[in-house]
Amino acid sequence: FNKEIIDKTHDLVPVYKLQIAFYEAYGIKGLLGYKKTIEYLRSIKKITIGDIKRGDISSTAEMYAKAHFEGEFEVDFITLNPYLGFDTLTPFLKYIESGEKGVFVLLRTSNPGAKDIQYLKVSPKDEYLYYIIGDRLNEIGAKYRGSCCYSSIGAVVGGTHVEEAKEIRNRYKNMFFLIPGYGHQGATGKDVSLYLNNDNGGIINSSRGIITAYKNYEDGNQRFADYARKAVLEMREDIDSERGV
Amino acid sequence: FNKEIIDKTHDLVPVYKLQIAFYEAYGIKGLLGYKKTIEYLRSIKKITIGDIKRGDISSTAEMYAKAHFEGEFEVDFITLNPYLGFDTLTPFLKYIESGEKGVFVLLRTSNPGAKDIQYLKVSPKDEYLYYIIGDRLNEIGAKYRGSCCYSSIGAVVGGTHVEEAKEIRNRYKNMFFLIPGYGHQGATGKDVSLYLNNDNGGIINSSRGIITAYKNYEDGNQRFADYARKAVLEMREDIDSERGV
Repeated sequence: FNKEIIDKTHDLVPVYKLQIAFYEAYGIKGLLGYKKTIEYLRSIKKITIGDIKRGDISSTAEMYAKAHFEGEFEVDFITLNPYLGFDTLTPFLKYIESGEKGVFVLLRTSNPGAKDIQYLKVSPKDEYLYYIIGDRLNEIGAKYRGSCCYSSIGAVVGGTHVEEAKEIRNRYKNMFFLIPGYGHQGATGKDVSLYLNNDNGGIINSSRGIITAYKNYEDGNQRFADYARKAVLEMREDIDSERGV
Repeated sequence: FNKEIIDKTHDLVPVYKLQIAFYEAYGIKGLLGYKKTIEYLRSIKKITIGDIKRGDISSTAEMYAKAHFEGEFEVDFITLNPYLGFDTLTPFLKYIESGEKGVFVLLRTSNPGAKDIQYLKVSPKDEYLYYIIGDRLNEIGAKYRGSCCYSSIGAVVGGTHVEEAKEIRNRYKNMFFLIPGYGHQGATGKDVSLYLNNDNGGIINSSRGIITAYKNYEDGNQRFADYARKAVLEMREDIDSERGV
């Protein structure tokens, strides 16, 4: 399934994000599929994002770094959860310094529950928690800015909340964004293009919108990879038209 | 290694916590070791905690629930990260309702960086963020209270911060705690016993303090399991003496 989807879309898609939970759910066999999918993507020189959302104390984080930046599950980027604090990012920095790896830290996610914690207002300035975290990431990331001016410490910012997109983009001018929520979760080309910065500065991700597109068609089961391709093309057109391309 | 440690300690230890990162770091082979260790612990009727600290939007969380409450990686309890919001807990509730599974949600961790986010003061009441989260967990957990009066929705509260132990225990009288930080991270029997509630209400965990105890002895490499047992006995004595047993 994965190989067919990749083969039908790779001329259009520079970056593939894999959600590890969907493999982990099937135990060892599932994770073998994860490993093989990454290997295939790397063999055809695609950029890979492991959507793992790990986060743990530094001795443990070191093991997660080893797991996902080396060895069988090696990818180019991973997502991280910041709740345990910024010391939990340290083990990943040596990989980032090498210039070959990057992370996206969860800031403002695209699910309904995002408001429960990320939107709490922090005293004394009464700012959203995600800004407090974003400001610290911005500071840390300033040391890891590549030649293209974006830092290898990026952030996950949900594409489903237009109203904040401009504000977040303005506040973090040099931060690279991973933007989920396009498609299935309801974000449109207009929403997500607000995060882009003169046509740059972010990766817009659509997962279910693409890989389950076949479910909308009668012959979807046979032609799932074709419909994935179609969904990619439509997504690109939608976003490009908002960017005025 | 794991089997020897378990065989030398299982008469003293009711609950084993596995940190999945240390297995994940070794790819498929590592995770096979994780699977086998869990299988062995379950075969000798021990309670297992998978320290996985996962947290993701609900469609993904459902996959993590399937991964760790069913199938090859099935354990009795898991740890969860709440940063994405309380909707991310929903997929785990059906397992909790069955009365056979439980979760520990990260509240106040034992690492230095815990202060970065968990200690932020939230307006308007200027309370620590971990209390805001704890209050919500307490509400959700009230629906899942077992006959022993503790809820199957527990919390991870670091054992290294004495000053807060009493306050947290008082605020959440019916919440079951997983208390890391004993041993290597510096918590003592006195610190952690404050979390216990009339001799109940929590699981005190020591990981590195026990499994790396052998490093303090010249013949440690040969007798690692004996020294693990010794560390368990010393830990029990330390905590019991503070509890006045």
